[in-house]
Amino acid sequence: MGNRIYNFNAGPAALPLSVLEEIKNDFLDFQGSGMSVTEVSHRSKWFDDVINDTIIRTKRLLKLDDKFQVLFIQGGASMQFCMIPMNFLKDDQSADYVNTGTWSTKAIKEAQIQGKTVNVVASSEDKDFSYIPKDIPFNSDAAYTHITSNNTIKGTQWAEFPDTKGAPLISDMSSDIMCRAFDPEPFGLIYAGAQKNIGPAGVCMAIVREDMLERVPDTLPAMLKYTTFSSKNSMFNTPPCFAIYTIQLVMKWLEETIGGLDKMEEINRKKADMLYSFIDASDFYQGTTATDSRSLMNVTFRLPSEDLEKAFIREALENSLGGLKGHRSVGGCRASIYNATAPEAIETLVDFMKTFEKKNG
Amino acid sequence: MGNRIYNFNAGPAALPLSVLEEIKNDFLDFQGSGMSVTEVSHRSKWFDDVINDTIIRTKRLLKLDDKFQVLFIQGGASMQFCMIPMNFLKDDQSADYVNTGTWSTKAIKEAQIQGKTVNVVASSEDKDFSYIPKDIPFNSDAAYTHITSNNTIKGTQWAEFPDTKGAPLISDMSSDIMCRAFDPEPFGLIYAGAQKNIGPAGVCMAIVREDMLERVPDTLPAMLKYTTFSSKNSMFNTPPCFAIYTIQLVMKWLEETIGGLDKMEEINRKKADMLYSFIDASDFYQGTTATDSRSLMNVTFRLPSEDLEKAFIREALENSLGGLKGHRSVGGCRASIYNATAPEAIETLVDFMKTFEKKNG
Repeated sequence: MGNRIYNFNAGPAALPLSVLEEIKNDFLDFQGSGMSVTEVSHRSKWFDDVINDTIIRTKRLLKLDDKFQVLFIQGGASMQFCMIPMNFLKDDQSADYVNTGTWSTKAIKEAQIQGKTVNVVASSEDKDFSYIPKDIPFNSDAAYTHITSNNTIKGTQWAEFPDTKGAPLISDMSSDIMCRAFDPEPFGLIYAGAQKNIGPAGVCMAIVREDMLERVPDTLPAMLKYTTFSSKNSMFNTPPCFAIYTIQLVMKWLEETIGGLDKMEEINRKKADMLYSFIDASDFYQGTTATDSRSLMNVTFRLPSEDLEKAFIREALENSLGGLKGHRSVGGCRASIYNATAPEAIETLVDFMKTFEKKNG
Repeated sequence: MGNRIYNFNAGPAALPLSVLEEIKNDFLDFQGSGMSVTEVSHRSKWFDDVINDTIIRTKRLLKLDDKFQVLFIQGGASMQFCMIPMNFLKDDQSADYVNTGTWSTKAIKEAQIQGKTVNVVASSEDKDFSYIPKDIPFNSDAAYTHITSNNTIKGTQWAEFPDTKGAPLISDMSSDIMCRAFDPEPFGLIYAGAQKNIGPAGVCMAIVREDMLERVPDTLPAMLKYTTFSSKNSMFNTPPCFAIYTIQLVMKWLEETIGGLDKMEEINRKKADMLYSFIDASDFYQGTTATDSRSLMNVTFRLPSEDLEKAFIREALENSLGGLKGHRSVGGCRASIYNATAPEAIETLVDFMKTFEKKNG
């Protein structure tokens, strides 16, 4: 550890220490180029190797066949919120959206501001977004169905992906991509801001099914068309090289150190179980989400009072446990336990929670 | 130097070695946070200090008063090409554009694809963009006038900014921002992809004059409005933290090591003079641009044959001089000598050019 803390930030978030160490070690001379990775040309063999290896590893980890393309786009998931309807939703069509929290709400708003027709087919707003809706009346003629697979702020996650009756599924997976294995077949688009589970801030991974690209209107500006990115291997203009390089190292870590997504999921389930079991057994800490909708990535909980929550967050940091404050819009506490958060960090957190309860409970 | 080469890449490009060393040294524990700079929250005091210090230093270096705001936007200059007309050009207005090469041409195209009215008031296409046009018939009622202050590919640069008869000047300064001092008063917007003169790829600095923000239509998607960035100090969503942090260190280097833009300009003029004087005195190397339009940043030249150019680029690299190949669209040779390229690198290059000429001339 050295001076490093246990990092429970929601994003930007913890990265595997071995990844950070490799970046540090190679920072002044990347792969014998005599340049930093931040200085090599994106048109060089060095960067070609970086981006292509990142794509190959991503496809292998997610079991994506050739009809899927892996793209790297700037602007975060928020840029995807506007690009999706712009590219995939014609004015005489409608799209289904499920509203499970802040980010779903924003995705809906960015479609509506463009004058597009959005059907909010389900929402959990009635219970402060504390659960994932079930038995949703999807429209089989929807241009697509949009969901947020994991809700970073509210701490919920789709345990299974819904049957959309044939409409291509589009999911914001910013906070849970690569946390578990899943069948990519129903997906027309998967997108994920990197800064939670796969890299630093500054790049969004977009995995698009080729048939979706046929919908893209010619009349869009170049930087807002998925086809611009797909036809140029994400290098129509200079890509965010350092962020993509970091994703490459995280994918390598997932494959070679962890052993793939089945293994990662097993570890993530153990980590989440450790924390949820402890919270369930306690009268002092209260989980905020429905049991069947709990997130493997973001564990949200409350203490008996806001004063205690403040003390908890402060004393945790004094004990090298950082980032436990809930999102500024909801308050409370949140432990984000992404892939890079080691089981040891959860154990240390649970120990601290026990001590804090004993002192204040 | 160690294993490092002299880096003449056009972008991503050389960064000051002291900046790279500071990034490397602090990479596992940023400012005592116990986290990497890639892991700290953008809502933390650590990152607040980074972004605010970057803005303060930028404003001080460019002598920007309070009517200018410094924003950080993703998508590079190419995203600005579409955002500019979207935000600042109403359907019943027209804008003046000067076409001085590839990037100007793209900026024009991205306005036209939106159905906007563009007047190309001058172009140097007749002589392969080898000069900057003079005596341009600007329209005083233009919504704005767009120029590319430095043309990375063709190696030309506006020696002085034009009098637009009152229309706000908008300039793509991707490849020459911070290379010299200038009066910011005529500018409505200055934008610059960081990866040439001020940082790594993955962020575009946009300096906007406040009155321009009044033009921004409410109906645009959030991520395409300048007002979204100005109202949230570029943190409506997660910004590209690492890229902004690197810009901060480059601004610090400009202020504290170089001593400001007057000093930087003096150094840059000496560097460019050294190379251009040598080329002018040689019959073997031929400059490709008009003398009064020469770029301080990108020095383009040809050798007697393409075979000799290939040999030159190859042997230069064997002598630790990298990135001397001209842009793939034009061929030839190009030495990009941005702020971070030390005079010593130019001296070494000129020595190599002399030796190569002696052997092959």
